[in-house]
Amino acid sequence: MLQPIDMLIHSAAQVCVVPAVGAAGSRRPQRGKVLGTLGLIPDGAVAVHQGRILEVGASAALRQLYQAATDIDAAGRCVLPGFVDPHTHVPWMGDRANEFEQRLAGATYMEIMAAGGGIMSTVNRTRQASLAELVDDNLPRLQRMLAYGTTSAEAKTGYGLNQAAELKQLEAIAALNAQQPIELSLTFLPAHAVPSEYRGRTDEYVDLIIHHMLPAAAAWAAERHLTLFCDVFCEEGVFDVSQTRRIFAAAQELGFRLKVHADEFVGLGGTALAVEMGAVSADHLVRTPVGDIVALGQSDTIAVGLPGTPFGLAEQAYTPAAAILEAGGALALATDCNPGTCWCESMQMVIALACRYMGLTQAQAVAAATLNAAFAIGRGEEIGSLDAGKQADILILNTPDYRHLGYRFGVNLVQTVIKRGQVVVHHRAAAA
Amino acid sequence: MLQPIDMLIHSAAQVCVVPAVGAAGSRRPQRGKVLGTLGLIPDGAVAVHQGRILEVGASAALRQLYQAATDIDAAGRCVLPGFVDPHTHVPWMGDRANEFEQRLAGATYMEIMAAGGGIMSTVNRTRQASLAELVDDNLPRLQRMLAYGTTSAEAKTGYGLNQAAELKQLEAIAALNAQQPIELSLTFLPAHAVPSEYRGRTDEYVDLIIHHMLPAAAAWAAERHLTLFCDVFCEEGVFDVSQTRRIFAAAQELGFRLKVHADEFVGLGGTALAVEMGAVSADHLVRTPVGDIVALGQSDTIAVGLPGTPFGLAEQAYTPAAAILEAGGALALATDCNPGTCWCESMQMVIALACRYMGLTQAQAVAAATLNAAFAIGRGEEIGSLDAGKQADILILNTPDYRHLGYRFGVNLVQTVIKRGQVVVHHRAAAA
Repeated sequence: MLQPIDMLIHSAAQVCVVPAVGAAGSRRPQRGKVLGTLGLIPDGAVAVHQGRILEVGASAALRQLYQAATDIDAAGRCVLPGFVDPHTHVPWMGDRANEFEQRLAGATYMEIMAAGGGIMSTVNRTRQASLAELVDDNLPRLQRMLAYGTTSAEAKTGYGLNQAAELKQLEAIAALNAQQPIELSLTFLPAHAVPSEYRGRTDEYVDLIIHHMLPAAAAWAAERHLTLFCDVFCEEGVFDVSQTRRIFAAAQELGFRLKVHADEFVGLGGTALAVEMGAVSADHLVRTPVGDIVALGQSDTIAVGLPGTPFGLAEQAYTPAAAILEAGGALALATDCNPGTCWCESMQMVIALACRYMGLTQAQAVAAATLNAAFAIGRGEEIGSLDAGKQADILILNTPDYRHLGYRFGVNLVQTVIKRGQVVVHHRAAAA
Repeated sequence: MLQPIDMLIHSAAQVCVVPAVGAAGSRRPQRGKVLGTLGLIPDGAVAVHQGRILEVGASAALRQLYQAATDIDAAGRCVLPGFVDPHTHVPWMGDRANEFEQRLAGATYMEIMAAGGGIMSTVNRTRQASLAELVDDNLPRLQRMLAYGTTSAEAKTGYGLNQAAELKQLEAIAALNAQQPIELSLTFLPAHAVPSEYRGRTDEYVDLIIHHMLPAAAAWAAERHLTLFCDVFCEEGVFDVSQTRRIFAAAQELGFRLKVHADEFVGLGGTALAVEMGAVSADHLVRTPVGDIVALGQSDTIAVGLPGTPFGLAEQAYTPAAAILEAGGALALATDCNPGTCWCESMQMVIALACRYMGLTQAQAVAAATLNAAFAIGRGEEIGSLDAGKQADILILNTPDYRHLGYRFGVNLVQTVIKRGQVVVHHRAAAA
């Protein structure tokens, strides 16, 4: 007597489980040299019921147990977990294509920002937009992320930089969460930049964040039974370590979990602070001092590499993945999708960059973009691998082997996206 | 009385003509500092009739002249010429995802090739395939190229390396030409590598090419009223300059036009030879000696940069675009799409790489990927710009401004592809 289930997805090629079928390891991040442990099941299948993964194993075995209402024959195509993108700057308004042109002529990101361009131009556009405009403008962006295989993501404020506009961004994220399949984790980032009206008065802006903006965001979240991350751009010329520490202490007091933009351009100490304060993740880590990498490796803080950003800026230095893994750290990948330094919605592109410029193998990059990325938003118990009990967030690639990820670049290798057991994207092979 | 026409495409945002409306310059390549001269028409339109461009201008003006059977409102989206990809290695069989994994572990391309891997593994797969398999396997690849905006391309043999298999590749290209919208220019490349059965006997293989393979290909082309290019991989350890010269002399005698793989890993002199022999294009040009760049700049040979290849190989050196432009050269861009060093079907990705690693502006990269690319396959009179009399090969982007190309990366910004006046691709905005 076969057990009736909602869906059976089977592939004559390969089911790529992260890390391995039924392994307890799917409930913890892959640290150090363990990164890239994948379980590959030739002629495998995934049984899905009520939006969750019921069982993963050999097709023949699962067929003897289950009768599926929907049978998805992935044929010669690789099945793997949905990508998790743990660092994006969605939502925003406008673009900075002109600024990119200026950078091609030699201006640096920090020079453009020092001259009042950069983030403030996006802030001005985002402040001016209504909530509805902000939602409408960002919905296609999330649909593109989904089409390229991202099934869960982080979304940040940080283009408001005043209380009303930061809360409008939170409202937009909540609305976007309800209007499309990607589940968005919410991060409050009023300390993304010092707004022009506070130029030269950073400490006053920090006081505003601590005494007004954080409490307002916490109240907003409490009403909605949401948990927020608090993030700070800890960087030379933006917020220093002591300002970051003050914001984080206040945020923790209010129940926020912590994330930090650390050591992107200058090794200022943001990573060490993240470790000290028990941040869930420390992101960028391009210029992190060796000692801080060692400390990170002994902590529970996830290191998030954002290789799209040095690529976007045509800079040479990338997150030193080998050192992080050597130290025993847990490395995740994210897009950093934003209009200034890295407008890229595709985690596949991030994997291609990580293989070339962070020295990861395809297997390491896939684990960093799924399981470890899930831990970087505090959701590793629920998503990020094909394991019984986790959400059925599943991709079918247009290729027989996960190793085509990274190897091929600039196009979309995802054919089908399944979110909580529902097919939400299906590309014709030709268009992918 | 309005003139009836097939199609009017109009955009409230921008029609991006290369180089400028009605300019005679659209019938010659953009050389040196002229590269990147685009004509931008805000609220512009393109009138199309019988597969050709009839007129380009202000929407209001064209509406007073024409009554279109099909009206395409591109609204806030940029309209520009279809991309031309003048260097691809379509068709091939199989993949080398495992070799990419080996390279991530430190093996170089030349080492893998010296060990009998590399090209020969693709050659073996391609030799074994039937014509039908070769066509079926490559059709989705061309459909992906089309989906990313390529409307004309070059396709090469070079994975046969014996007469029967090289002719099978020519047959496959001809069949693919008939089965999908991209027009393929045919290049005969038996001198892509020395096949393993001729290892250590390169001159004998060159004799085989000259006395048997070239005449057979010429006869094949003559029967079908086709013109072929002949290409040689002129590189240390492959074919030297004197072997290349012998092949080219025989090919010219038989009516082939010339292309060359020059100076990819070692500055061997292939570019100088291309100039001397009047080749239509010299491709790669990563290690080209300065003197050869100067000679190229004074010739009619188009320099084709293939930035996907150093990116694919994670190498640091790219085609020195500034030096080529300084010398007055005409620079084009292509994907080099192939399973060994650069599996990328997207000219948008190539533009993004050229902006970052060849120092081109978005305008220069777009001109190099359209008008100059058309000249690199000898078709600059017919395609590559939006100009009256040229083929109606037209893209509508999902963005208001051509400068989003290059700025954004890793995704598909093309919404609609029109080939010879027919809509052949239309992506839902979300999936693009």
